[in-house]
Amino acid sequence: MSLNAEPSLMPLPAKYTFGSGRLAITENFNLSLSGQIDPRLHDTITRFIERLSRQTGITFPVNSRLPVTLAINCNSIGKEWPALGDDESYTLIVDAQQARLNAPTTLGVLHGLETILQLVQQDERGFAIPAVNIDDRPRFPWRGLMLDVCRHWMPIDVVKRTLDGMAAVKLNVFHWHLSEDQGFRIESKRFPKLHERGSDGHYFTRAQVREVIQYARDRGIRVVPEFDMPGHATSWLVGYPELGTDPGPYQIERHWGIFDPAMDPTKESTYRFLDAFIGEMAALFPDEYFHIGGDELNGKQWSASAHVQAFLKQHGLKDNQELHRYFNTRLHAIVHKHGKRMEGWDEILDPALPKSIVIQSWRGQKSLNEAARQGYSGLLSAGYYLDLMQSTEFHYLNDPLDEESAALTPEQRSRILGGEMCMWTEFVTTMNVDQRIWPRAAAIAERLWSPQSVRDVRSMYARLARISRHLETTANLVHRQAYRMMLERLAGADPVEPVRVLADIVEPVKLYTRGDTRDYTSWSAYNRMVDAAHPESDAGREFRYAVEARDWTTVRNTLTTWRDNGADVRRTLESHALLTETIPVSENLTKVAVIGLQALDAIEGKQPLPAGWNASEVLNTAKKPVAELLLMAVPGVEALVSQASGTAK
Amino acid sequence: MSLNAEPSLMPLPAKYTFGSGRLAITENFNLSLSGQIDPRLHDTITRFIERLSRQTGITFPVNSRLPVTLAINCNSIGKEWPALGDDESYTLIVDAQQARLNAPTTLGVLHGLETILQLVQQDERGFAIPAVNIDDRPRFPWRGLMLDVCRHWMPIDVVKRTLDGMAAVKLNVFHWHLSEDQGFRIESKRFPKLHERGSDGHYFTRAQVREVIQYARDRGIRVVPEFDMPGHATSWLVGYPELGTDPGPYQIERHWGIFDPAMDPTKESTYRFLDAFIGEMAALFPDEYFHIGGDELNGKQWSASAHVQAFLKQHGLKDNQELHRYFNTRLHAIVHKHGKRMEGWDEILDPALPKSIVIQSWRGQKSLNEAARQGYSGLLSAGYYLDLMQSTEFHYLNDPLDEESAALTPEQRSRILGGEMCMWTEFVTTMNVDQRIWPRAAAIAERLWSPQSVRDVRSMYARLARISRHLETTANLVHRQAYRMMLERLAGADPVEPVRVLADIVEPVKLYTRGDTRDYTSWSAYNRMVDAAHPESDAGREFRYAVEARDWTTVRNTLTTWRDNGADVRRTLESHALLTETIPVSENLTKVAVIGLQALDAIEGKQPLPAGWNASEVLNTAKKPVAELLLMAVPGVEALVSQASGTAK
Repeated sequence: MSLNAEPSLMPLPAKYTFGSGRLAITENFNLSLSGQIDPRLHDTITRFIERLSRQTGITFPVNSRLPVTLAINCNSIGKEWPALGDDESYTLIVDAQQARLNAPTTLGVLHGLETILQLVQQDERGFAIPAVNIDDRPRFPWRGLMLDVCRHWMPIDVVKRTLDGMAAVKLNVFHWHLSEDQGFRIESKRFPKLHERGSDGHYFTRAQVREVIQYARDRGIRVVPEFDMPGHATSWLVGYPELGTDPGPYQIERHWGIFDPAMDPTKESTYRFLDAFIGEMAALFPDEYFHIGGDELNGKQWSASAHVQAFLKQHGLKDNQELHRYFNTRLHAIVHKHGKRMEGWDEILDPALPKSIVIQSWRGQKSLNEAARQGYSGLLSAGYYLDLMQSTEFHYLNDPLDEESAALTPEQRSRILGGEMCMWTEFVTTMNVDQRIWPRAAAIAERLWSPQSVRDVRSMYARLARISRHLETTANLVHRQAYRMMLERLAGADPVEPVRVLADIVEPVKLYTRGDTRDYTSWSAYNRMVDAAHPESDAGREFRYAVEARDWTTVRNTLTTWRDNGADVRRTLESHALLTETIPVSENLTKVAVIGLQALDAIEGKQPLPAGWNASEVLNTAKKPVAELLLMAVPGVEALVSQASGTAK
Repeated sequence: MSLNAEPSLMPLPAKYTFGSGRLAITENFNLSLSGQIDPRLHDTITRFIERLSRQTGITFPVNSRLPVTLAINCNSIGKEWPALGDDESYTLIVDAQQARLNAPTTLGVLHGLETILQLVQQDERGFAIPAVNIDDRPRFPWRGLMLDVCRHWMPIDVVKRTLDGMAAVKLNVFHWHLSEDQGFRIESKRFPKLHERGSDGHYFTRAQVREVIQYARDRGIRVVPEFDMPGHATSWLVGYPELGTDPGPYQIERHWGIFDPAMDPTKESTYRFLDAFIGEMAALFPDEYFHIGGDELNGKQWSASAHVQAFLKQHGLKDNQELHRYFNTRLHAIVHKHGKRMEGWDEILDPALPKSIVIQSWRGQKSLNEAARQGYSGLLSAGYYLDLMQSTEFHYLNDPLDEESAALTPEQRSRILGGEMCMWTEFVTTMNVDQRIWPRAAAIAERLWSPQSVRDVRSMYARLARISRHLETTANLVHRQAYRMMLERLAGADPVEPVRVLADIVEPVKLYTRGDTRDYTSWSAYNRMVDAAHPESDAGREFRYAVEARDWTTVRNTLTTWRDNGADVRRTLESHALLTETIPVSENLTKVAVIGLQALDAIEGKQPLPAGWNASEVLNTAKKPVAELLLMAVPGVEALVSQASGTAK
């Protein structure tokens, strides 16, 4: 038996024990459903079979007379729409004869089927699932992904495959960021100028919104819409300038950043508008939660406006913050009136608002703990910003419950509902959105689902590589394919392989430094190596690991490839306008590799270090961002140099 | 200027002259439309801009105040539906300031836009189109692709991306093979048991059919449906056994081959049924042509049937062939009554039928010439069967007008309308259909569009490699992606690279030998290396070319890679059930590479041939198909051995 079971699972189940033996998956595969059957399960099963067929290449004839390979039992249908706190648990017992999947609700069945697909492997006898005993349930009830479809338009295909990916790793909340300075992305019947004038024609129709909600529901995913107010709202004001503090006119914002336009919180007409608008949207979205944004209001329009300042005085409000509180209180009443619970970013946290709201924290665990202490529910997004190009390890080890959370009472702790990763799209287009989200999102999904003690980074990376393939095969994602196509675009008709060697060992600059050296807008071309390069360089990490493991063969081969790549790729870099900026990066790679090889020769005793050897000059130069790229060969070579210099710690 | 223009075009235009200079494609790109504007052009333009954006990564803001980069002029809208003989010509003049596309009809505009996309390249200054003067029109008016959606079901997504690919290489007829022994793939309102019982639930709804026809029309492509009768018709008889010669009951056929069931040509009820059915379908499909199949009737049911034999006697028909003629004559009257011209395979050619029919020849140019002499129109499919795994070169050099055609009068010659490639799908699934069709179809498209004198095979292959990428980037095809995913499925979690080295140098067995050693059915798994391997090995061909060119560096590197791959891949092949059958292929590759290296050492004078050297034993063994695979390292190594032995011609 060569089945290697654990490495394929992500998130790891709450409890699992692998047995010996295997359940063969052949063309005689057959399944049965018993208990309470939600009608949507029939489509789920069809999709499951299709995906199993993609994984194995086997056609599964429908033949109910065959012995049952997979027996599914579901105790209750559950609610019409998935909701916070639903029972998502399941058990899965696999032996050589049969797999038995049991779940209290449909949601558990959905999750269990994803586990089964992840377990399918090919061994020397064919496809099979290893014998296993799984008792699984999530650690947190709120495991979300936020997609900004505003700054760059993301059409329905992107949304759907994102939902497919989410379902595959047991995420259960799709937070749909639908309005921004740069675009209003949903059709409104009541206020058609919102989408007509605020979107450049790129918006979701009401029919598409229903389609997405249904699609998500069929995958056990809640859909929470966000309409950001009173800031981040320029696009609303293009069609309805009367909503704004200043009279306008307003244009769709084309730049990135925090902008001045804000809704006018002093006029009753603003609340009448929002009442009608939220009423319309509340009827469209079945989820109990409704996100009103509330972040990053700079207050400039309010401060500069005579009538707003008069309003402050009249109402005894001492500053913009108190006015924002006033606005949120009015907004909360409207959201509540339409049967929803209000969600917002950190900034809305205020004792004036009832405890029923949910705080989404971009500030961090401290603010989350504080909210929990005050009686508010919250979820963590700080540390889960996918646009900041941080390592998967960083996101993976970022836990909604930090050390300080231990001081919370169990009741307070239970108010920390989970987390949500955020995909802001200033620098993300339809071409690279998949690879900006995936496979990293799977590691965050594990953080939110699996026991807190699951924190083995090496295991995570090993499993992530498999899950990455799995997501492309079974969840329609194109993150690996898109990388290749972007590199081919860079290389034109030239061989892509040497360009790939270079792109594999760089990473985009981190945090908010992208754009420090260029003025990006909605119209900019996001077609450079920085847009293609993975947020984290696998090649760089694996090289570091090889150095740590003193695997000198791998280290030498890698360094040699890097050193020689400069000559291979030079002509291509020179003759393609999009690549010329990377010539110094390629040159640095060669230089760094030469340093690395010299260090290795010394370590292996093949050749002493050259006289007057000065590695740090090359390495320090190579560390500086060029073309908004970081050369990730440096950390591993630094470790090597450190060993060679006899200063290894 | 490093733009390299000609190598990107396929099909090559009728006339073209490249100038010097380039038209830059930047974010200031702007276009204008003048003349008579077909409303569908607006969608075409939107799609053109999107595709240009995918190619370049540039976002093109809509800004009509910019200077016009591309001026499109169209003299007339043309017909509502594309039709045989439409003017498809266009001229394209590009200089450093502007591209001017002129066409007499919308169809020419569509073709011209595809040419423009193929011309876009990146040089050291950015993206650009080279200066060029093109006067283009097709050689043949009928340039088709037949897709069998019956033997393996091909859903609408496959059909749509096939149409995208066809449009990109200026093919203009989608022949939709909709009924077969193995499946009836279209909804009939009049006879619902056709699709309900004959399709396993896999059929196109009428709405989908309209969508496909519209989609094709928007790309300048006619849609000709085929309903195969009286043979190849088992699936009709499942729901309507009374249509069959024998009383039934009938089951959907699960095997491949030629089967006995045939419609009953003796009953009036058959013709009433076909009248109603063809009436329904004729109303659904706007094209003038209607394909009735008519091929491969084995006549066994007719011969064995007492009432059919009695009918023969009664009507003075001497054999099944005459009865088939009788059936076709009746069928023709029905097709004609519903306003269509009848098309069928070779077998329907019969003086009893009027000259208005079109013969699709799977037999060859001889039969086509003969038909033309008799006054019939025809098109060539022999030599364009994509399922037979022949080389692109073979298909490319196969011309609808052969040497014998020169003896035809111009009028007779004009009856040879063009050709159609056929994608029969016994061994083709949704997973590999793209790579079975593409990029080869582009070379056949060139044969049918470009002047007969365009026959440079090396040029074709060089351009094909570029067009292959282009099709994936701009026409939504997944032929390259799917290859990688199939290899990853074979390799499981193991490294895919050594499996790819092996798969790159094999080809599936040719012609009708697939299945000689196995009994394949609809339910078989098509997931082996033979299903993943490309119809033609680029690696094998390039190696042969390198040997011919005496490029010993490439030859040695290639042989070394092949020799060493055996050790790298061995464990993966042994531990994956789908790959174990390829172990001998991998062993043969190593052995053949060793022979090749020995020959090369001798040629280069590095090492004399070993004493008692017997290359032919290894090579002859390696030539034999294993796992339905041919090892394409052999021809190049044979050439090398021949040189080493001093027997090179």
